[in-house]
Amino acid sequence: MKNLIAEFFGTFWLVFCGCGSALFAAGYPELGIGFAGVSLAFGLTVVTMAYAVGHISGGHFNPAVSLGLWAGGRFDSKDLVPYIIAQCAGAIVAAGFLYLILSGKAGFAIDNTKAGAFASNGYGAFSPDGYSIVSAFVTEFILTMFFLLIILGTTDKFANTKFAGLAIGLALVLIHLVSIPVTNTSVNPARSLSQAIFAGGEPLMQVWMFWVAPIAGAIAGGFIYKSFLETKAA
Amino acid sequence: MKNLIAEFFGTFWLVFCGCGSALFAAGYPELGIGFAGVSLAFGLTVVTMAYAVGHISGGHFNPAVSLGLWAGGRFDSKDLVPYIIAQCAGAIVAAGFLYLILSGKAGFAIDNTKAGAFASNGYGAFSPDGYSIVSAFVTEFILTMFFLLIILGTTDKFANTKFAGLAIGLALVLIHLVSIPVTNTSVNPARSLSQAIFAGGEPLMQVWMFWVAPIAGAIAGGFIYKSFLETKAA
Amino acid sequence: MKNLIAEFFGTFWLVFCGCGSALFAAGYPELGIGFAGVSLAFGLTVVTMAYAVGHISGGHFNPAVSLGLWAGGRFDSKDLVPYIIAQCAGAIVAAGFLYLILSGKAGFAIDNTKAGAFASNGYGAFSPDGYSIVSAFVTEFILTMFFLLIILGTTDKFANTKFAGLAIGLALVLIHLVSIPVTNTSVNPARSLSQAIFAGGEPLMQVWMFWVAPIAGAIAGGFIYKSFLETKAA
Amino acid sequence: MKNLIAEFFGTFWLVFCGCGSALFAAGYPELGIGFAGVSLAFGLTVVTMAYAVGHISGGHFNPAVSLGLWAGGRFDSKDLVPYIIAQCAGAIVAAGFLYLILSGKAGFAIDNTKAGAFASNGYGAFSPDGYSIVSAFVTEFILTMFFLLIILGTTDKFANTKFAGLAIGLALVLIHLVSIPVTNTSVNPARSLSQAIFAGGEPLMQVWMFWVAPIAGAIAGGFIYKSFLETKAA
Repeated sequence: MKNLIAEFFGTFWLVFCGCGSALFAAGYPELGIGFAGVSLAFGLTVVTMAYAVGHISGGHFNPAVSLGLWAGGRFDSKDLVPYIIAQCAGAIVAAGFLYLILSGKAGFAIDNTKAGAFASNGYGAFSPDGYSIVSAFVTEFILTMFFLLIILGTTDKFANTKFAGLAIGLALVLIHLVSIPVTNTSVNPARSLSQAIFAGGEPLMQVWMFWVAPIAGAIAGGFIYKSFLETKAA
Repeated sequence: MKNLIAEFFGTFWLVFCGCGSALFAAGYPELGIGFAGVSLAFGLTVVTMAYAVGHISGGHFNPAVSLGLWAGGRFDSKDLVPYIIAQCAGAIVAAGFLYLILSGKAGFAIDNTKAGAFASNGYGAFSPDGYSIVSAFVTEFILTMFFLLIILGTTDKFANTKFAGLAIGLALVLIHLVSIPVTNTSVNPARSLSQAIFAGGEPLMQVWMFWVAPIAGAIAGGFIYKSFLETKAA
Repeated sequence: MKNLIAEFFGTFWLVFCGCGSALFAAGYPELGIGFAGVSLAFGLTVVTMAYAVGHISGGHFNPAVSLGLWAGGRFDSKDLVPYIIAQCAGAIVAAGFLYLILSGKAGFAIDNTKAGAFASNGYGAFSPDGYSIVSAFVTEFILTMFFLLIILGTTDKFANTKFAGLAIGLALVLIHLVSIPVTNTSVNPARSLSQAIFAGGEPLMQVWMFWVAPIAGAIAGGFIYKSFLETKAA
Repeated sequence: MKNLIAEFFGTFWLVFCGCGSALFAAGYPELGIGFAGVSLAFGLTVVTMAYAVGHISGGHFNPAVSLGLWAGGRFDSKDLVPYIIAQCAGAIVAAGFLYLILSGKAGFAIDNTKAGAFASNGYGAFSPDGYSIVSAFVTEFILTMFFLLIILGTTDKFANTKFAGLAIGLALVLIHLVSIPVTNTSVNPARSLSQAIFAGGEPLMQVWMFWVAPIAGAIAGGFIYKSFLETKAA
């Protein structure tokens, strides 16, 4: 049970600070943190929570990560559903608090006819810089696949595993530095779901893509690591 | 006594560099460091001092942290008052030096009718982006609560504790990336007090909120970690 | 074979995220990540992959690094050609995916009459800020030479080698912070080749310089470390 | 002798990349790295070289650091003069290469009637934001004093010393985030000397201050750590 509480809090933190930094701070006039600051925020949620609760739950905070670890032979299939439920619950509750805080600012409203509404993900007309669905799919697939290669590699028993939490979190910084203009960056179906629920409209219609592409990429990454990179014998 | 000197210097450093970066460098034309640079500055004060004097005092530099650690069963109640006095003293002396340095610049004056005067914290009309008192309270409460979860988790005897100083400092970077537009970011009553004293006026009237919300959040974080996340037996 | 797969994936990641961040995110209006964000992206590809696959291949991801390690007596000459082929293949495949993704954006075209086309490197009229070929050569030579000094020093048996992956990746951040305006930063012949192939025109004509200068600098760095800095006896 | 070669290369790297990032990249239109990028560059020179050659020379790269370590009882007085000469030589040679590279750009000239000419330090009319000599002195004194507290604390035998190189380098990032607008940030007499020599004029007349204030602060820091923070018995 402790592990599900840890996943709930960890995914809450990822959405609250990652999406929160985008909603509160990215576009502040002159002094705003921009996409680089948002990238740093998403990644640091994982660095901080990996070292805080990684010893309790493994520190996934992301359904695609849980599924990729299962594909890589590192996570038990019977834990998949409870983990994914805890992650989605944490993400949705965090999005609710973001909505509450934003509603305390004069003139706040979600305009779901625009890309990135309530920090949601999108493609085509809902991609921040107008990338097609194919570009969006390829980007999310490749980035999540490599995210899993990095997670599996840095936690390999032959690796320098003390640094895994740092390297994995910095991988998420990097993924956001590359792909915010393409899809507003998902690589995490729980983060996509929570924002789409509050945004509604077209962003909610597009959320399927941010379950399919990251999960497919994660499973590919798990399979590739296990098949081609893992050292078999000690 | 050595531990109180360490807390004095550590909190001095937090205020001198965190608030100093905001006052000297954030809004410099074209080249200024913005909110992202200020966020990094606050967090790096903790990273640097945690590794420098953490072995002497534990590296709190923040009354809410001391109280949250006490709530989490990791800090002795008899040390609370001396620690908090040393922290507030360090913060106030640092703010005095910031005032001295700024007074050596032509045209310097504190305009305490504006949000963020002398790097003070605020809500409502004194929130940098106009967030209500409820939004400000919720933001400070949640962020300080998670700050304590991260502090307690990363220093847990089952965790990879060598990285605690880094993860805790990066948590403070993250907290600032999210919340400067909401409250100018406190999560630290000593930092709020020192700036409010020099700002005076409405910022000083609002300083109570930046004692109540962070301390309540910190105690909640300490209680949640001890009750739901800590491993009981070895 | 596993080591060549690791070098392929590592160099793919370096080009996909490093050059991808430049192409997708650097110049996004108002919120773009700029040269600082691109610098961080390049460096984090190495931090993340060094901890993920460093235990498999050593984590070079760069022909100049392989040659510099050989000059420093740390890499076997018989592995040079396979490593360099795997690195160039990873880089070129990554550039192909970047091309595919960009082609899904309305109005995309490579204008190879301008500096930095498709994130290519250049000097003279193709230097982002108009630096001469001599300035470009000296900059690439010095930066790659020091890159090798850092790689050899941080992995020296007398050093604190657990941090090598972090220090080496941060060295690449630093190198980009300095030199993007001069040459768009190479220090890596594979990264230069892949972008030049897709850019064509003058950028492709200039690519020789980004093999000669980094490799010469790397070999100088390897030789200097071995001759003047390495501790001979245990 | 190896230790002096290491100090030469380390201080070369600090000046070449720190001042180089300011000269080449800080003010590039739209995409420039600004003061935050320059801050990161200075600090990363120390992170990278501390892990690369720290095991050879201790990794000072700064006359004030050598003198502060001597005041703190950690460095032998007979090594002071050779270290300081090696540091100044490395800094001056690096500045020469920066001059060479910049001279390969059309229209390059040093205008030593302006603050920050050739990345030099200054006060009064030569402070980037017009701070007085008293403000400049106090800022340099305090920042160098704390830099030494951090160096002595993180390398204390009771501290988590593996992280010292990271914490010390990040302290230099932090110091620059705060003080570039005040003095263009010295805390390092070798870095000030090398730039002043090439700038000439008033910047060269002011260089005395960037020897006196950092060295006085460093000695104060060394003395304070030894007297009030160091644990005497094991």
